[in-house]
Amino acid sequence: MAGGQQYVGLDVGGTTMKAAVVGDDGSPRSKPVVMDTNPERGQDAGLETMCEAIRRAVAAAGLTLPDVTAIGVATPGLMDIKAGLILDPPNLKPWKNVPVRDHIQGVFRIPTIYQNDANAAAYGEFWVGSGQEARSMVLFTLGTGVGGGIIIDDVILSGEHSHGGELGHMRIEMPDRGRLCGCGARGCLEAYASATNVVRRAREDMAAYRGATKLRDYYTANDDVLTAKVVFDLAHAGDELATQVVDDTAFYLALGATALTAVVDPEMVVFGGGMVAAGEWFRAKIDAQVRRFGLPFPTKSLKVAFASLGSDAGFIGAAGWARAATRGKA
Amino acid sequence: MAGGQQYVGLDVGGTTMKAAVVGDDGSPRSKPVVMDTNPERGQDAGLETMCEAIRRAVAAAGLTLPDVTAIGVATPGLMDIKAGLILDPPNLKPWKNVPVRDHIQGVFRIPTIYQNDANAAAYGEFWVGSGQEARSMVLFTLGTGVGGGIIIDDVILSGEHSHGGELGHMRIEMPDRGRLCGCGARGCLEAYASATNVVRRAREDMAAYRGATKLRDYYTANDDVLTAKVVFDLAHAGDELATQVVDDTAFYLALGATALTAVVDPEMVVFGGGMVAAGEWFRAKIDAQVRRFGLPFPTKSLKVAFASLGSDAGFIGAAGWARAATRGKA
Repeated sequence: MAGGQQYVGLDVGGTTMKAAVVGDDGSPRSKPVVMDTNPERGQDAGLETMCEAIRRAVAAAGLTLPDVTAIGVATPGLMDIKAGLILDPPNLKPWKNVPVRDHIQGVFRIPTIYQNDANAAAYGEFWVGSGQEARSMVLFTLGTGVGGGIIIDDVILSGEHSHGGELGHMRIEMPDRGRLCGCGARGCLEAYASATNVVRRAREDMAAYRGATKLRDYYTANDDVLTAKVVFDLAHAGDELATQVVDDTAFYLALGATALTAVVDPEMVVFGGGMVAAGEWFRAKIDAQVRRFGLPFPTKSLKVAFASLGSDAGFIGAAGWARAATRGKA
Repeated sequence: MAGGQQYVGLDVGGTTMKAAVVGDDGSPRSKPVVMDTNPERGQDAGLETMCEAIRRAVAAAGLTLPDVTAIGVATPGLMDIKAGLILDPPNLKPWKNVPVRDHIQGVFRIPTIYQNDANAAAYGEFWVGSGQEARSMVLFTLGTGVGGGIIIDDVILSGEHSHGGELGHMRIEMPDRGRLCGCGARGCLEAYASATNVVRRAREDMAAYRGATKLRDYYTANDDVLTAKVVFDLAHAGDELATQVVDDTAFYLALGATALTAVVDPEMVVFGGGMVAAGEWFRAKIDAQVRRFGLPFPTKSLKVAFASLGSDAGFIGAAGWARAATRGKA
């Protein structure tokens, strides 16, 4: 067994939760334990599943509970980070006002810290992922929605109302003509650059496009067939319209990143989520648009990178933030 | 003389600089000393003027240099905050790479801290102005340009390249159709909501307006006659077109504020600068648009206020930040 302190990181999502013990060096002590969240079974069952995931993670690491210095738990918003409460997140219906931090701390009698899941993922990338050399870093998470997290000098910017780093809901377009977002507002970055909206824009662009495009083969396809990955693959293979959709995506993401440059001026912007599987080709497109549209001085040496921890970033970051808390940072 | 520690705050602008001694309670010990900056005389003369302003401020407070615990100096960007360097700000031509912090610290042998002027003003408002009850606060400064500063948990967000809180250069409109900003880019908040651009929009709107408007009396007026104050005064007196210009200004500022809500999620947004002399009537317009366009949850309890320290915020904040530094915060 490696020396140093041991921390449990637990990342709760709407479908599954992942937990593992993470050491002082940021490396998981085992493959993560994955359990179904089953929010529809209610929040008491949910809390019990969280505790069971923690127990199994400790066992999988070949440890016992007294070996654990602290526990970090991350969940999707809405939440009250300071109070340790899950409020009423759309992904965890019908849970409401769940005292997740105090419950887990009470069960295990181990210091427990609570964070937003995207903030935790950002901290994970900052701690031992793509941002490990940076002093400040912003993460954009690209999935069904667009999330984010901001780390400055080893501290998560949680926000006064637990909404720090809600980067998908920055507007990149005026509200009178912006695309409609799932949140009900118009012009949010998420309404342009989430995986869902990449597909939606591809469908719209196809309807207006007169040239030949492989996208048309997917004209009647459902969203489980015409995915963002298909759009990216077609673009990578040279399809002109798909390339336009990807170029637009890079442009929208760059607008998000350059807004952050004017507000936070980070050392590094990192993009994570399924779309970054497209690789360096896509990163270079975003990077070029950032250079074109960012404030020159702070953009000059801004680093634009893709995340490196994949879906492990959340539990690693939750554990890392628990570690930071025991050191007086969180 | 009041007890406690004493700090000198110096706020250097392109035209004048202001300095005063400020106590632990944030109150200046005298009226500020005001001296002409005269950047055209060169940076050596500029540094000497800064030192003289500090000496006079100490004398005006009835103190001597050994009574001063620390000195805080604020200047406009471009700058390198960590290195204590003025780089080559457009307002201080032809100065270039001026080691302002080390020079002042060397002359007085008193710990000296350096900050951006808008960040210092934000810290002043946070410390003893409109934000004194807040844990986190964003200041927008509305003048010839739009500046800003972000304070979170008593710390200034300086940014990795000294560009934290460059809020005037957040985009509120797409770059392909946004208004042209002084920075050369399109769509920046400053291109809509600075005092200069309020006047510019008033002129443009007048040209397209068919109804009667008092603004037309200023059709051939120079910008020293048709000022943002004239536009606000006409609006307050009921002029329909001027009201539209002011309403649009409130809308644009609200877009800036709501972007901050999604990124930083502060407890309070404060607006400062000449335009806030318009008073509660204008604040209420901004507030209403913030409620309309902000993310519901963090906006619900967001406070929208006007600054209370006027043009003293800069030197008070510079002194306050020097005080924070001696307490290990800065």
